Amino acid sequence: MRIPFKQLKAEFKRILISLDFPEAKAALCAKIFAENSRDGVYTHGLNRFSTFVTHIKQGVVKPDAEPSLINAFSALEQWDGNFGPGILNALFCMDRATELAGMNGIGCVAIKNTNHWMRGGTYGWQAAEAGFIGINFTNTTANVAPWGGTTPTLGNNPLVIAVPRKGGHVVLDMAVSQFSIGKLQQYKSYGDLLPVPGGYDEDGNLSTDPAAILASKRVLPVGFWKGSGLALLLDLLASVLSQGNSTKKVTDRGIESGVSQIFIAIKPQSDEQADELIEEILNFTKSSQQIDPDKPVFYPGENTLKTRHKNDAEGVLVDEKIWAEVRAL
Amino acid sequence: MRIPFKQLKAEFKRILISLDFPEAKAALCAKIFAENSRDGVYTHGLNRFSTFVTHIKQGVVKPDAEPSLINAFSALEQWDGNFGPGILNALFCMDRATELAGMNGIGCVAIKNTNHWMRGGTYGWQAAEAGFIGINFTNTTANVAPWGGTTPTLGNNPLVIAVPRKGGHVVLDMAVSQFSIGKLQQYKSYGDLLPVPGGYDEDGNLSTDPAAILASKRVLPVGFWKGSGLALLLDLLASVLSQGNSTKKVTDRGIESGVSQIFIAIKPQSDEQADELIEEILNFTKSSQQIDPDKPVFYPGENTLKTRHKNDAEGVLVDEKIWAEVRAL
Repeated sequence: MRIPFKQLKAEFKRILISLDFPEAKAALCAKIFAENSRDGVYTHGLNRFSTFVTHIKQGVVKPDAEPSLINAFSALEQWDGNFGPGILNALFCMDRATELAGMNGIGCVAIKNTNHWMRGGTYGWQAAEAGFIGINFTNTTANVAPWGGTTPTLGNNPLVIAVPRKGGHVVLDMAVSQFSIGKLQQYKSYGDLLPVPGGYDEDGNLSTDPAAILASKRVLPVGFWKGSGLALLLDLLASVLSQGNSTKKVTDRGIESGVSQIFIAIKPQSDEQADELIEEILNFTKSSQQIDPDKPVFYPGENTLKTRHKNDAEGVLVDEKIWAEVRAL
Repeated sequence: MRIPFKQLKAEFKRILISLDFPEAKAALCAKIFAENSRDGVYTHGLNRFSTFVTHIKQGVVKPDAEPSLINAFSALEQWDGNFGPGILNALFCMDRATELAGMNGIGCVAIKNTNHWMRGGTYGWQAAEAGFIGINFTNTTANVAPWGGTTPTLGNNPLVIAVPRKGGHVVLDMAVSQFSIGKLQQYKSYGDLLPVPGGYDEDGNLSTDPAAILASKRVLPVGFWKGSGLALLLDLLASVLSQGNSTKKVTDRGIESGVSQIFIAIKPQSDEQADELIEEILNFTKSSQQIDPDKPVFYPGENTLKTRHKNDAEGVLVDEKIWAEVRAL
């Protein structure tokens, strides 16, 4: 079922205002939730909206809270998110990082005590839209076992890297696990096997069976020991620079809240030369001989833009049941 | 066979001086080559020294060349490596990034026209030793096929992230391929299979057979499409920020030279609080139930330190044949 973007956004806004969100904040949160669905990241758009509402009702997310400055040292700042809406805090931080980069070439904002930012890519697109390279990452609750271990003590910390480009920004938005829990559930519900191994079964064997992986709770970090190391380093950077909660502390809270996040922006020196270089790199990458003549090599962000245009033109694809549930909120 | 660290270093220095390296530069390059072997990264220590010598003789690496400043914008600087020794240029850039971070909280140095830095981790350890978080990466010649393609149009661009720590720095030093070509050759020469899939055979099937992967030249990026995207973004950042050669241009040169590199340093705000947080994170990660009771969960850099201590105490492990070849240079 397809719903016009405007209707989706208006519905989210209506609900948030009913939950005592100030109008401007309701409008901005609603816009991002609707954009996430519009860009095809349904898991962090409509499909996660009711969880957001629950968190507001539980007081986990505080609609009124604003980020406050803790420390400023030239191009590096520490902020406290004061448990405000993760989307608003993250938009604020990337905006601030681009301001710092505008003044210093590069800027870094670390925030603690913030909430789930929904789709990490949102803030990469934001930086790129402003003409900056953007790098952002967050820690999460522990849900990935480290290399050599069987129980989760690492977060599935997503890393976003975005480069502004005239013909459509290049935005990598990757969590450190090969497949998200949501994706595994989706494959399982369709009765499909994964295209590549996505975790371990209960006997510790690599598996493409989503049900077996969900049962063992052992999702595979990208590149085995490498993704395990990357997840650890992202948590170290986010926690140390924000002086906020680590994955351990977030896990101890029992609910994914009060997380630590990093936003870095860098100003490319020459836009014109950058454009040429980017085209050269993308064209070369795409020149690889295709495995399937009908499936071109894509750059990160390319399919997002296609989905965005399709959903803008035809309406945003929604799960009918979830849409009905949200309308009833 | 084991050789004292001092002897290894002295031998490298002797050879570099014979190749018209100024003494201080010879000493520094020799130290890093010897340290790479001492830390167990034999492929980028002794084992690569004769290639370095060849590149000097061919004029690919210019012993006298110094980096020169192209653009400075507060915390962000662009340098030209002028085809000097990659090790010296990289040490200079990370040192400069920490200076910029000391003044601005965060600093970023982009360098173009530099040469192979040998082991990327060297500059992560350097930043951490100076009390800074370090992030560095380089582009390379094309040697990884992108997701959806069969011929290499991406570099196996290594990414280093280092966090300073009293009890031993945490240093992630990862290339985007699951196994390096050197590792595949090592497994092949021992007749061993890889512990996890490392690429594709000539029929396009995932394989743990190093010979089949070397034959197809299709090494696996970490996390399939994710590592493919990460490799692309690292090349974009390195090329755009340095305004230097992209993976395509480096590949066109026919020899891995004139590469582009990025060095970022960040100053943690409170050393004491950082230390506590880091211990909390490492202890939590290590608390995962072990797959093998005899194999603890390690953090990146932990085994490097063990190898360093062992090689310092007992002499650096060298391949006898390679050692004889280098002594004859």
